[in-house]
Amino acid sequence: MASLPGYDYEFMLVTDPRPGSAVAHVQINRPGKLNAFSRAVWLEFGSVFRRVSGDADVRAVVVSGVGERAFTAGLDVGEGFVVEGDGDAARRAKGLRGRIGEFQECVSEMERCEKPVICVLHAISLGLAIDIACCADIRLAAKDTRLAVKEVDIGLAADVGTLARLPKIVGSTSWVKDVCLSARDFSAQEALEVGFVSQVHDDKDKTVRAALDMAVRIAGKSPVAVQGTKELLNYGRDNSTAAALRYTSVWNSVALQAADVPAALASVFSPDRKPTFEKL
Amino acid sequence: MASLPGYDYEFMLVTDPRPGSAVAHVQINRPGKLNAFSRAVWLEFGSVFRRVSGDADVRAVVVSGVGERAFTAGLDVGEGFVVEGDGDAARRAKGLRGRIGEFQECVSEMERCEKPVICVLHAISLGLAIDIACCADIRLAAKDTRLAVKEVDIGLAADVGTLARLPKIVGSTSWVKDVCLSARDFSAQEALEVGFVSQVHDDKDKTVRAALDMAVRIAGKSPVAVQGTKELLNYGRDNSTAAALRYTSVWNSVALQAADVPAALASVFSPDRKPTFEKL
Amino acid sequence: MASLPGYDYEFMLVTDPRPGSAVAHVQINRPGKLNAFSRAVWLEFGSVFRRVSGDADVRAVVVSGVGERAFTAGLDVGEGFVVEGDGDAARRAKGLRGRIGEFQECVSEMERCEKPVICVLHAISLGLAIDIACCADIRLAAKDTRLAVKEVDIGLAADVGTLARLPKIVGSTSWVKDVCLSARDFSAQEALEVGFVSQVHDDKDKTVRAALDMAVRIAGKSPVAVQGTKELLNYGRDNSTAAALRYTSVWNSVALQAADVPAALASVFSPDRKPTFEKL
Amino acid sequence: MASLPGYDYEFMLVTDPRPGSAVAHVQINRPGKLNAFSRAVWLEFGSVFRRVSGDADVRAVVVSGVGERAFTAGLDVGEGFVVEGDGDAARRAKGLRGRIGEFQECVSEMERCEKPVICVLHAISLGLAIDIACCADIRLAAKDTRLAVKEVDIGLAADVGTLARLPKIVGSTSWVKDVCLSARDFSAQEALEVGFVSQVHDDKDKTVRAALDMAVRIAGKSPVAVQGTKELLNYGRDNSTAAALRYTSVWNSVALQAADVPAALASVFSPDRKPTFEKL
Amino acid sequence: MASLPGYDYEFMLVTDPRPGSAVAHVQINRPGKLNAFSRAVWLEFGSVFRRVSGDADVRAVVVSGVGERAFTAGLDVGEGFVVEGDGDAARRAKGLRGRIGEFQECVSEMERCEKPVICVLHAISLGLAIDIACCADIRLAAKDTRLAVKEVDIGLAADVGTLARLPKIVGSTSWVKDVCLSARDFSAQEALEVGFVSQVHDDKDKTVRAALDMAVRIAGKSPVAVQGTKELLNYGRDNSTAAALRYTSVWNSVALQAADVPAALASVFSPDRKPTFEKL
Amino acid sequence: MASLPGYDYEFMLVTDPRPGSAVAHVQINRPGKLNAFSRAVWLEFGSVFRRVSGDADVRAVVVSGVGERAFTAGLDVGEGFVVEGDGDAARRAKGLRGRIGEFQECVSEMERCEKPVICVLHAISLGLAIDIACCADIRLAAKDTRLAVKEVDIGLAADVGTLARLPKIVGSTSWVKDVCLSARDFSAQEALEVGFVSQVHDDKDKTVRAALDMAVRIAGKSPVAVQGTKELLNYGRDNSTAAALRYTSVWNSVALQAADVPAALASVFSPDRKPTFEKL
Repeated sequence: MASLPGYDYEFMLVTDPRPGSAVAHVQINRPGKLNAFSRAVWLEFGSVFRRVSGDADVRAVVVSGVGERAFTAGLDVGEGFVVEGDGDAARRAKGLRGRIGEFQECVSEMERCEKPVICVLHAISLGLAIDIACCADIRLAAKDTRLAVKEVDIGLAADVGTLARLPKIVGSTSWVKDVCLSARDFSAQEALEVGFVSQVHDDKDKTVRAALDMAVRIAGKSPVAVQGTKELLNYGRDNSTAAALRYTSVWNSVALQAADVPAALASVFSPDRKPTFEKL
Repeated sequence: MASLPGYDYEFMLVTDPRPGSAVAHVQINRPGKLNAFSRAVWLEFGSVFRRVSGDADVRAVVVSGVGERAFTAGLDVGEGFVVEGDGDAARRAKGLRGRIGEFQECVSEMERCEKPVICVLHAISLGLAIDIACCADIRLAAKDTRLAVKEVDIGLAADVGTLARLPKIVGSTSWVKDVCLSARDFSAQEALEVGFVSQVHDDKDKTVRAALDMAVRIAGKSPVAVQGTKELLNYGRDNSTAAALRYTSVWNSVALQAADVPAALASVFSPDRKPTFEKL
Repeated sequence: MASLPGYDYEFMLVTDPRPGSAVAHVQINRPGKLNAFSRAVWLEFGSVFRRVSGDADVRAVVVSGVGERAFTAGLDVGEGFVVEGDGDAARRAKGLRGRIGEFQECVSEMERCEKPVICVLHAISLGLAIDIACCADIRLAAKDTRLAVKEVDIGLAADVGTLARLPKIVGSTSWVKDVCLSARDFSAQEALEVGFVSQVHDDKDKTVRAALDMAVRIAGKSPVAVQGTKELLNYGRDNSTAAALRYTSVWNSVALQAADVPAALASVFSPDRKPTFEKL
Repeated sequence: MASLPGYDYEFMLVTDPRPGSAVAHVQINRPGKLNAFSRAVWLEFGSVFRRVSGDADVRAVVVSGVGERAFTAGLDVGEGFVVEGDGDAARRAKGLRGRIGEFQECVSEMERCEKPVICVLHAISLGLAIDIACCADIRLAAKDTRLAVKEVDIGLAADVGTLARLPKIVGSTSWVKDVCLSARDFSAQEALEVGFVSQVHDDKDKTVRAALDMAVRIAGKSPVAVQGTKELLNYGRDNSTAAALRYTSVWNSVALQAADVPAALASVFSPDRKPTFEKL
Repeated sequence: MASLPGYDYEFMLVTDPRPGSAVAHVQINRPGKLNAFSRAVWLEFGSVFRRVSGDADVRAVVVSGVGERAFTAGLDVGEGFVVEGDGDAARRAKGLRGRIGEFQECVSEMERCEKPVICVLHAISLGLAIDIACCADIRLAAKDTRLAVKEVDIGLAADVGTLARLPKIVGSTSWVKDVCLSARDFSAQEALEVGFVSQVHDDKDKTVRAALDMAVRIAGKSPVAVQGTKELLNYGRDNSTAAALRYTSVWNSVALQAADVPAALASVFSPDRKPTFEKL
Repeated sequence: MASLPGYDYEFMLVTDPRPGSAVAHVQINRPGKLNAFSRAVWLEFGSVFRRVSGDADVRAVVVSGVGERAFTAGLDVGEGFVVEGDGDAARRAKGLRGRIGEFQECVSEMERCEKPVICVLHAISLGLAIDIACCADIRLAAKDTRLAVKEVDIGLAADVGTLARLPKIVGSTSWVKDVCLSARDFSAQEALEVGFVSQVHDDKDKTVRAALDMAVRIAGKSPVAVQGTKELLNYGRDNSTAAALRYTSVWNSVALQAADVPAALASVFSPDRKPTFEKL
């Protein structure tokens, strides 16, 4: 399936699997390397989501990996992500800070993307796979997914977001610390039980289909409502209740002036009339 | 059953179902409209909880809806909650901010109420039902409850508290975003599994009874201990651990001077002697 | 089993149950009093964890209680933890603030300890047992454990950390408020279901063994990775995502300069070679 | 001068000294008691500012005291502001918390008032005078003003806002702590030098006139711009720069849709044409 | 004077006025329009500082405007900064949020720039001039500078940073609100007295010379020390003291491993030996 | 003058210069080394203030240096404050973090000390002198004091508190960054003008005398009021206004129950009767 116009990348495949539904399917596309991330991959990853965020023709996004073997095996350690550099420890630290910061920025673009993102985890989903999944809004997994916060096993603390986000995403810190400190594998079923993913399906295909169905449903709703809901939930997670209520009232003071509320209300009372909502 | 003296409202029924136990039962009382909220309803709702909060004769509260059909169907959209107004977008925004703020304030009175509040969800519990339930301390549900964060379906992002509070109330953000973005129904059982409610009972009656039993138990304990526990848990939720520990030590530096500790200790060692605690 | 050299305490037993594995086993050692805490006990408790934190020979810690009857029954109320004092309410309050603060500090040493701490709950685990468990990184429980946030029953709001930490540790605030306001018992199984503990085993022995196995696994990994992971997860819990990402990049800018990454990578590609990591 | 219609109070005089300018002059009106505050006074004080905040006919406010002798001498200690009550220390504390909270709320209404407030300090301006002045946007003082954070001299820490706000209002914490800990008098000139006030005039009349002139100028500008500026400065004071920038962009995304920008721009290019702005 | 290699811009002139000193002079270069900012200008402005931040050959920066007439007259209102767009208010709001956010990002690049930035205010310095100056580390002004937070006069609240930053930059909020609400002009002398600028010189030339001298001095010091100091001061401004101390210890745990400390110490004891520091 | 009983230190001299006034004078006592700080000195420094904080016989503190030549010349760089250690950069970083943290803790004890601390700066007051002065409540300086944030000149960013606290202590960030980035000397007069100190006196003796007079005045007031004022001002500096108001009401709910308010009020109305206040 050809890439959406304007989305030509080497390591990212962006398609329109349900034409007319305003859903984009973003796939990590380096199957020969188990979809591992070199620097080139993460720069493209950031670029895709920056673009999607501003593309009024896309209203919901599904993310998965190309192929049957992996969502992603994580960082491509063969590609020299470590800044060799010379100079003393402080000078090497500056280089590393810059490199980590750039990597974090690219992955965070998925969280900042103003459209809902549904992440499909499948097969090998290690290390960076979890960092990425933490930036999605909704996570689904195929039954056979092999998940792990693997970083401790290569001698480092995960630095692309898992440790910053996982404690806010899953309710049990005992479980969070168990998997982060031990680097042990956990199954899709375990991920479901602790709430890391919210659905498990039999295989990758079925999971992708479930994700696309969900994306289509969301994309059919008012984008003012959907994008506002995403923004306000993210704000609520990181701020006190009082601050979040105030922000909500400022945000909605203009959102409620959209044509979407009367359009949606009309369809509530005439359920056979599907509302249409202008692009946003 | 007659309203408690001093609690005369048009849309709120406040009774004393277990005389002598210091438990108030607050019921949304507009069954002909599925307990939907017009502005008059939410003003009364705020007023009830402001009063309960300062009423030393009430030590715990149960909230439910009158009738079998609904806890509440949400906002009464026929009652013009939208500020029509004229003027440009900024001037309409000011009106909307004021209206949303007033509504938030009224619902938040339940969270600010210094007495524990147990919310019984039953039958139709849509939209605003979730905003309200998020302000309760403990949530129970009847088996047949029909729950949904419905706002997206009427073209808006929920603005009376669900998006500010739900991410802090339930452990799985994947589930939170699923139900908030899709506006889909979820059952009492699903609510139990993700931890949104902590008990499910067979029908409304049994759930109300379980809630009243729980309220009676709590109301029988030291109000200094109970109200302090509520305050400190809310503080802990919205502040760093270090700040919460400090606040706790300041709070308890006077609470521990109450007569309640010796009274409670005495009964621990003589279990047949039920302690009595002064009003607070 | 003799105490580790340098760890001689009256109420704390610190042993090395798996020699060569860098795992310390800290046991509350006052079985005749159900491991209840007097002031002398909590001062020693703080002291142990301050020492462990800086001891490069210890890489992971397991905590439990001596004997079959209790992890701990909580505060030893017979030992006058209440500051009697004279003077007016404000002067007594200063004394109480100081005493609570000291107690909080001692218990918090376990949270601040830079090594992962695995807490084994068993038998009677009331009140303070929960405050302590909240400071651990990972919680396991024996099947027959009797758990309760008991403080309300002795007329006070828990002030040594449960109310500050539990809302951030367990995903369901409805459950948190239920157990904190009602002071009711809950079982190991219930604790598992809500995510307070992450494993339940048949009896105390099996649970301790599971905890030691877990500790040995963690202690065999890079201490730079493990201690950094603990630090960054704690930081992520108490700070916004943006702040946590920034802190992570600063932290890892030097951690990545350790010899541990190449050592760990080498072993990834030669799985039969177990990496060794220098002390930290 | 008669009170503005709708502003009938016993202890507050609200006039319209510059008809047609949309400026309200609020005066504390209890000169026989040096404008000291009993509970009745502070309840009215809160009520005035709540009303002004929502009154589209008022665009700027000047606050001063009636008479030559005092802005205010502070709390009317003869009026039993201390909650006598009986019960133990914890129960008296609850009463006091309620009373302090109510008092703080009333004074804070001036800060929350959406219109700019200019405070004229003159003659005796002790204790509560500073709490009140801290809630104003701009402070002017007459030359002979006698200022002091007097609370320490009556045995208490100021609790109506001075200690919460002064460190954020004046640049020198050394000076702030000096005047708060010593309760010493300071002059208008000293207040000017440290930046607590921004203008000093020869006497009360001249200061009031300067304040009214300033209020008239501000009231002539776009209320969308003026009220937004007040809101965003307050937000900037209490939040990180990143959060404040984000909030600003959301706020202005609707404010910029007002008719005020084109109206103001038109007058910039035709300076003889005074723009008029719709009420807000 | 020719632009530094690699710094070719249409509206920004970047020179090396003190060769060998590692000081860059960035000048806003649109004198025919009083250095007013169109979108093209602010995009270049952001680009310059992003580049400078990562350029190890630049250790300190001076910013001023080309020509004698203006630092900058602010936004070029003739260049359609308002997003006309169609659609309802919510859709126009999304466009405006995006535009404001982009503008804020570009100006904030100066604050984020890891090298110290000294801003020279001179002649017309209105509106955006203050937003920009607030992002500098140190502000100097020529005697004749005409300063104003002008936005209110064109019907809007300043949204590119002044309102978010000024309350944290200048000690007197009374003064801050005076100039922001009234949009009145203030002089270099007044700016000096309130601490907005820290030096005033006779004319633009002398001020630029003073700024360059200061930049040369700073650029001669250890860049590890200088850039760390900037980072930690910014962090200290936006965070609690406890958090800032912790961040400082993590930051310096690697910075102190630089060769700069011994190099600097050597020169302290042999004052005739000027230390040299490696690039950073 | 002999040390106060119980205050025997090698490098700290603690005296009682105004017997009966409850004022302690703490002097850094290593004049032969210009009062420079080795590790032994800072450990004692922390110990003194921890003790003073809990000593009910001390109600206010003055800090200065022994001798005419220096308050302190800063860190004793000859005493190996740098952790040499071996191991890789990450392991050295852990040692440095520990060392910096310990040093910060010791200096911060002065800020945490519950009694007001007045710092007298005189003669050489470099580097650490500013870190220490930032922890005092009130700062005075002798005319000839030579002040500088000197750390940049020895190749490091100040890490014992100056960068975390100075931006909150002085109103002009332009000045703060100037002195921190340039490491230049500034005079007592300049310190006065920017508000870093609040009084300048002719020489050390006169400054100490002024500080002692101020301390005696403060020590004569209600310690409940004075210590509460210090606590609440510190809280106000680091928290939002809303949080600070809430904390204030909880704090004062018990403080107002002290006997100090009636005692102080009695003396207000009978000015010849000096109130006495119980120890705290």
